[in-house]
Amino acid sequence: MPKRNLFYAQSGGVTAVLNATACGVIETAREHPDRIGKVYAGHQGIIGALGEDLIDTGKETRAAIAALRHTPGGAFGSSRYRLKGLDESLAEYERMIRVFRAHDIGYFVFNGGNDSMDTAWKVSQIGARMGYPITCVGVPKTVDNDLAITDNCPGFGSVAKYVATSTREAAIDVLSMKQTKVFIMEVMGRNAGWIAASGGLAGSKRHEPPHIILFPEIPLDEVALIARVKDCVERYDNCVIVASEGVKWPSGKFVSDAGSKDAFGHVQLGGVAPVLSNIINHRLGYKYHYAVVDYLQRSARHIASRTDVEQAYAMGEAAVNLAVEGRNAVMPVIVRKSDKPYRWEVGVAELSKVANKEKKLPRNFISRDGFQITAACRRYLEPLIQGEDHPPYRDGLPDYVHLKKVRVRKRLRETFDIDG
Amino acid sequence: MPKRNLFYAQSGGVTAVLNATACGVIETAREHPDRIGKVYAGHQGIIGALGEDLIDTGKETRAAIAALRHTPGGAFGSSRYRLKGLDESLAEYERMIRVFRAHDIGYFVFNGGNDSMDTAWKVSQIGARMGYPITCVGVPKTVDNDLAITDNCPGFGSVAKYVATSTREAAIDVLSMKQTKVFIMEVMGRNAGWIAASGGLAGSKRHEPPHIILFPEIPLDEVALIARVKDCVERYDNCVIVASEGVKWPSGKFVSDAGSKDAFGHVQLGGVAPVLSNIINHRLGYKYHYAVVDYLQRSARHIASRTDVEQAYAMGEAAVNLAVEGRNAVMPVIVRKSDKPYRWEVGVAELSKVANKEKKLPRNFISRDGFQITAACRRYLEPLIQGEDHPPYRDGLPDYVHLKKVRVRKRLRETFDIDG
Repeated sequence: MPKRNLFYAQSGGVTAVLNATACGVIETAREHPDRIGKVYAGHQGIIGALGEDLIDTGKETRAAIAALRHTPGGAFGSSRYRLKGLDESLAEYERMIRVFRAHDIGYFVFNGGNDSMDTAWKVSQIGARMGYPITCVGVPKTVDNDLAITDNCPGFGSVAKYVATSTREAAIDVLSMKQTKVFIMEVMGRNAGWIAASGGLAGSKRHEPPHIILFPEIPLDEVALIARVKDCVERYDNCVIVASEGVKWPSGKFVSDAGSKDAFGHVQLGGVAPVLSNIINHRLGYKYHYAVVDYLQRSARHIASRTDVEQAYAMGEAAVNLAVEGRNAVMPVIVRKSDKPYRWEVGVAELSKVANKEKKLPRNFISRDGFQITAACRRYLEPLIQGEDHPPYRDGLPDYVHLKKVRVRKRLRETFDIDG
Repeated sequence: MPKRNLFYAQSGGVTAVLNATACGVIETAREHPDRIGKVYAGHQGIIGALGEDLIDTGKETRAAIAALRHTPGGAFGSSRYRLKGLDESLAEYERMIRVFRAHDIGYFVFNGGNDSMDTAWKVSQIGARMGYPITCVGVPKTVDNDLAITDNCPGFGSVAKYVATSTREAAIDVLSMKQTKVFIMEVMGRNAGWIAASGGLAGSKRHEPPHIILFPEIPLDEVALIARVKDCVERYDNCVIVASEGVKWPSGKFVSDAGSKDAFGHVQLGGVAPVLSNIINHRLGYKYHYAVVDYLQRSARHIASRTDVEQAYAMGEAAVNLAVEGRNAVMPVIVRKSDKPYRWEVGVAELSKVANKEKKLPRNFISRDGFQITAACRRYLEPLIQGEDHPPYRDGLPDYVHLKKVRVRKRLRETFDIDG
């Protein structure tokens, strides 16, 4: 087999451990000098492939690549650019193959969520159709934990650890303060409640916070919510709520919908936590605080899960090994062998079976009343947040690496317009 | 000198290291069995003294007390209850002295901010007036860092480390994402910009985030802000903003004022970050994200500053030593001896000189344009976030202690109504 170059791209929302996967990809590729030449990374993901904007990872030192393991974000830039069907987006696929051909790219490793696995799957099919041999391997990544087949997704364990830790810490704060009665923390997860569920790990007994978890899978019953909040405050003197950004009213409308009016005629700016705080305060008069953690939850590498870091690295490593074996149109997955002690191994899934599927929180992971996680959910979640992997610190702050990102010289004369 | 009991109370907003001070107080008191009998803690701070609701810290194990050093919040409960002047609140002072007398309390150690130091100062004066001998010592605590005389306040270093780390991490996320252009993180500090300033430690060069810091000390110039955001996005492709919750318009009105209308007639729910995001989005059309960290910033013991933990403990220790020496109406303070290498020692201030004073960010700590910190500010802040002090973890989460809080049997027949 001739030696060919590898193209790696990061896609969609970034995570605390996406770069640990990049580290796994690059370090493993460097172990195959007979089969893999250069490792090029797309600047801003797939847009880098279309725009022939390639970063030569060979120009980064071994130490810099190793430091990716403890650096959050997407070191090469990510984007939400999505390729459509082959007929609709023919020009884009043709362009991509032209770029690959110009740079002798024989391996395409695409690191993303379900949308991205759809793109990876399509690319895996066009090589043959266009007479260009390419091995295409997906790598799972998403804080949302909503990819099919894989037991969990790299990125999720760390956001879960962040959310559970922050819930525990904020709840101790609320408990300390005589006057504050309600605390709401808004977390990510527009369609699936995995992240909200992870807040449930902060406590394990009924009186322990969080007292209420609001999932996108369960339509929000305002009357039941108000009754539960009142009951909590009466029993425990306060009520801690973890709310998914994707919580919807029974009408199907997002609670956070910008421009909506709440029950009191107030125009909303968006954000579940402010809307819910407002409703609770008007109905019950309780003093409240709320937090919206937004990007912090998925970039908090300082409190990453060691399990997550190891799995993220292992997925990158496995992807390169699959590519070298010539396994086209596949994605490495995490296979759970047992809950306690937690054991897992690397498996392989067909990209066609992962693309565009969305794994929501199973109903039996949510309590009957819709406000808590079940023991089954806890058994699933607990292993994923195990272990710490503190980054190195310099001058009191985590010491994250910034790559040189040396660009590969363009070989194509024509440019390509991207409406990203 | 006869052996007498010590009363300790936590007051105002809690911090990541308030309990480290409690640990210092209790462990040091246990080293003086000849002078100090029991250490009682007020449940919910000073309210515990008025309500004769005392916790016997002697019922806690040595290990539990030691674990306070790494546990956030206020282990005995805190409150914002404020005693007024002696004439106005005579009944409360008389009641407090009755409770102290009933439990043979000869030392009053009060742990709080400037309001609380005012209360501590008043109590220090009434003993003599009411013919009851009591030694009253204040202990500094506040995330706001706004206490007079002391170089810095325990609690601030850890919130500063949290804010700087979170800013750095979120900024890496923003930089990774092609589409997001503006990120705003709202932090505490209603009147003083110390916490907002600490976000500036996330970067040190002009292009490094945060690109804009909004302080309560600088009236917000909307035109200048919009121009600066636009300039940042054009230069650096994104703009990261750290905004104090206390930012005001030139009229003196808080930007976060609930019920206010923004420039576009939208009713606001409160919160600087959503209001600013909205304004920037309307004026410039940039895609934005925002975070409101609220209680998380002051309870994030998992990323506490080791310097802060050590100082918090040292203040508790020093307070007890001052009490044992019979130094009434004083507060231990942190005295900075040098910036680099950072050296500090424990000093002593008169409570009368600390009470009700508020130390704002000096103008020379803010850049001329009002959007950044200066080198002088950086020299001041940097030492305070140095060092890590990771808490122990269990099952993937920080293992914080919950005390038994065994109550002391009441000795007074009459109860006392508190409108807290």
